[in-house]
Amino acid sequence: MAKPKKQPRPKAETPKGFRDYFGPEVTERTEMLRTIAGVYHRYGFDALESSAVETVEALGKFLPDVDRPNEGVFAWQEDDSDWVALRYDLTAPLARVYAQHRNDLPTPYRRYAMGPVWRNEKPGPGRFRQFYQCDADTVGTASMAADAEICAMLSDALEIVGIPRGDYLIRINNRKVLNGVLGNIFGEPEAVAETIGAGDPSGEERMQGVLRTIDKFDKVGEAGVRELLGKGRLDASGAYIDGVGLNDDQIEPVIQFLTSKGSSNQETLDNLTAAIGTNAVGGQGVLELRQIAELLDAAGYGPDRIVIDPSVVRGLGYYTGPVYEAELTFEVFDEKGRKRQFGSVAGGGRYDDLVKRFTGQAVPATGVSIGVDRLLTALREKGRIHSEAHGPVVVTVMDRDRMADYQAMVAELRNAGIRAEVYLGNPKNFGNQLKYADRRDSPAAVIEGADEKARGVVQVKDLILGKQIAENATLEEWKERPSQVEVPRSELVATIRKILDGQG
Amino acid sequence: MAKPKKQPRPKAETPKGFRDYFGPEVTERTEMLRTIAGVYHRYGFDALESSAVETVEALGKFLPDVDRPNEGVFAWQEDDSDWVALRYDLTAPLARVYAQHRNDLPTPYRRYAMGPVWRNEKPGPGRFRQFYQCDADTVGTASMAADAEICAMLSDALEIVGIPRGDYLIRINNRKVLNGVLGNIFGEPEAVAETIGAGDPSGEERMQGVLRTIDKFDKVGEAGVRELLGKGRLDASGAYIDGVGLNDDQIEPVIQFLTSKGSSNQETLDNLTAAIGTNAVGGQGVLELRQIAELLDAAGYGPDRIVIDPSVVRGLGYYTGPVYEAELTFEVFDEKGRKRQFGSVAGGGRYDDLVKRFTGQAVPATGVSIGVDRLLTALREKGRIHSEAHGPVVVTVMDRDRMADYQAMVAELRNAGIRAEVYLGNPKNFGNQLKYADRRDSPAAVIEGADEKARGVVQVKDLILGKQIAENATLEEWKERPSQVEVPRSELVATIRKILDGQG
Repeated sequence: MAKPKKQPRPKAETPKGFRDYFGPEVTERTEMLRTIAGVYHRYGFDALESSAVETVEALGKFLPDVDRPNEGVFAWQEDDSDWVALRYDLTAPLARVYAQHRNDLPTPYRRYAMGPVWRNEKPGPGRFRQFYQCDADTVGTASMAADAEICAMLSDALEIVGIPRGDYLIRINNRKVLNGVLGNIFGEPEAVAETIGAGDPSGEERMQGVLRTIDKFDKVGEAGVRELLGKGRLDASGAYIDGVGLNDDQIEPVIQFLTSKGSSNQETLDNLTAAIGTNAVGGQGVLELRQIAELLDAAGYGPDRIVIDPSVVRGLGYYTGPVYEAELTFEVFDEKGRKRQFGSVAGGGRYDDLVKRFTGQAVPATGVSIGVDRLLTALREKGRIHSEAHGPVVVTVMDRDRMADYQAMVAELRNAGIRAEVYLGNPKNFGNQLKYADRRDSPAAVIEGADEKARGVVQVKDLILGKQIAENATLEEWKERPSQVEVPRSELVATIRKILDGQG
Repeated sequence: MAKPKKQPRPKAETPKGFRDYFGPEVTERTEMLRTIAGVYHRYGFDALESSAVETVEALGKFLPDVDRPNEGVFAWQEDDSDWVALRYDLTAPLARVYAQHRNDLPTPYRRYAMGPVWRNEKPGPGRFRQFYQCDADTVGTASMAADAEICAMLSDALEIVGIPRGDYLIRINNRKVLNGVLGNIFGEPEAVAETIGAGDPSGEERMQGVLRTIDKFDKVGEAGVRELLGKGRLDASGAYIDGVGLNDDQIEPVIQFLTSKGSSNQETLDNLTAAIGTNAVGGQGVLELRQIAELLDAAGYGPDRIVIDPSVVRGLGYYTGPVYEAELTFEVFDEKGRKRQFGSVAGGGRYDDLVKRFTGQAVPATGVSIGVDRLLTALREKGRIHSEAHGPVVVTVMDRDRMADYQAMVAELRNAGIRAEVYLGNPKNFGNQLKYADRRDSPAAVIEGADEKARGVVQVKDLILGKQIAENATLEEWKERPSQVEVPRSELVATIRKILDGQG
């Protein structure tokens, strides 16, 4: 008889760019999101959980023009008809939800959402294809009070999860001000305001060049920006970077805009007004910033927390008014050991056209998205996450037939609010049980052999103290094992509690 | 010039079978899962969040044999090479995770997981293609203490979320006992135990028929099962259902097995022992049930909470030992107004072969999955979810230029822990503001016009009382509007608090 063909074993791997999250990685994130949700809720925002799968048509941006939708999303065809995709953010689904349910939702509609999103992008170190976002948006109002409220709420949220005042800064700009500056340079201010970059291709190219250059202001400074807007620049590595090719008359207003930041919001706004001149769109942008600044000032959110800053440029094309970004300003060491500012953890702005796609009616909206994983990383870097110090207490199994006794012990401990488990592996090798307790990072192991049972006592091994002794003690001291105590069975819970309280 | 072609508007719809969850639907589920996670954690289980996307190869069951993987999962091909899919449960990913990370995980590994899963099935009323599961599993131990622990933990979890003792029952059976009975009837007990249904096709067909019939025991009773196992049965609708075609000697042991449930676990186990006879596999199954019963008995989980019940048949083919199911025993009205037992909300069992697919080594495992949406429905039916009684307090806008004043009011309320928001829509029509407050289910609206501002007072409208009056009062009474009070601005927070406390 022929040997049956052996199936090759499947590989135990996540798909490329995906990962699993274990223990504290999950619970710390859950706890942080719960805290943020509490802030959002107090501000009157309602929870929304939209479906993870959307039609490609509703997601918009990535309509299938060929056989397969654009890169960037995970999309597939259902039943030889509709293309569907995993959501790539929480904003596009919100626009769909609002358009679908607008008759049942309050106007304005304040909502928050938290959950995973998926991006079909090249994975890299620390860059995954599934990650969490945490958004808050207000749909259905053009009032700048909505934008001011979101910035204030973001400030509250950052502080409540553990970023103290002084360690973060929320910076606000307005896309209209930038559009006004560009309109002054490239002409057709109205057209530029409507669709940035529309117009002749060379003008569009230069406009994009200006935007990219503005984004480098923090890095290369005023002189660098001047060179990059003009003929070009020799960078630190010795490479020559071609410039955008503007003349001095065109460069000047961009520099004036970029360096508008004064010592107060008032001064910044005055500088911006001067930079904009008579440009109508730009003037509207400055007016909006002024309204936001006044509201925040009245609410006590000073420039130590939220500040007008013209150098903020956010990437997404759909912003139409105020844009904002939260940066963590403390320094961390990067992978090469260099000190760096931690950088951005949240951003957002006003997008007035997203719902219009569905309904034909313009629906003004503004909102923020927190990069959950980056914020968690920041909190861990600063030691602001107080995760559990230890794993569960492990009750060892000395006598397999007395499992019920050991289960009674863990039940007692749990009822006292203490995390505890009985060893469920093969109990034959006691060393393995202690190794298991070690791997579980247990604060204590409980031992009750036949002898202890007969005498009505248990042995309690203080594994926290044990570790300290193992690190510092001589072999003699180690052998005396003072970290193990014998106590009456009735004192089990009290003894464990002492160990957990650090008085063991 | 030709009119530019108009793009049709995208439809604002979820894909078929998907839905969105709003406000309390989200927060009530989050809160319930958090409570359950607390129980699991106290039992020593660690959180795990695996990626939502898995390779089809790792998911197993649905290997692509043609161009497109089987129905049942949402799957697509990445980069013309690997097929990937959305997870359809939390157990298959656990097997992959354990195989992948087994060197870094403790053995046994207790883990819990909660999150959405996706099924590419025909949607129906209340049946969606994305839904939540909440699982707890112990991997790496063959000890029946693991199964007993999971059942006890499930019992604790149900009670803590609000299902009181007496309103639920966890029933335990063992697949091996059933295999033993079938082995006695169809012969080749070892082969039957290894792969149920292997053997000659007609035998397999009859075996499946027996399983289906056993599942109907609750519905048709002993006499009905006898008929269905034999020649057939005329059902209530007058239709004749063909029987499995067993003879009386074959029917008897099945009936004996099915009716083994005694007045105590002890009696049930004795009856099962008699039903099994000398069958080795069946004997092992009864022994396992006996161990579980003893452990639960010692831990105080009596048959009012967890009971051995031979009529439990769980669908999944991969269970290899104990199977368990949690039923809610209280009655609800179904869509036709008939009284029904609420039914199953959780189930699970032992599956010893899932990890072996990856590693070649058998890894024993056991676990339970809670149907999150069904449990939530049950809690709502029983009024056991105490959602917020009201929405946020709404501060109305009488004077658009004094937005800062209104924001100061909401800030004060929030700082006092009261959910509050300022109206952000167009304030021109005051009626719309009150309609908004109504739609938000606000407990109170705050009004401060120029006159109130000048006199240092605010108007507070008690909307809870207002609603009561609107329902009961005459027009005269209504016009007096006693539900609106004028208070000093400094007493705003105290006045709102009185209303929230029901003393407004």
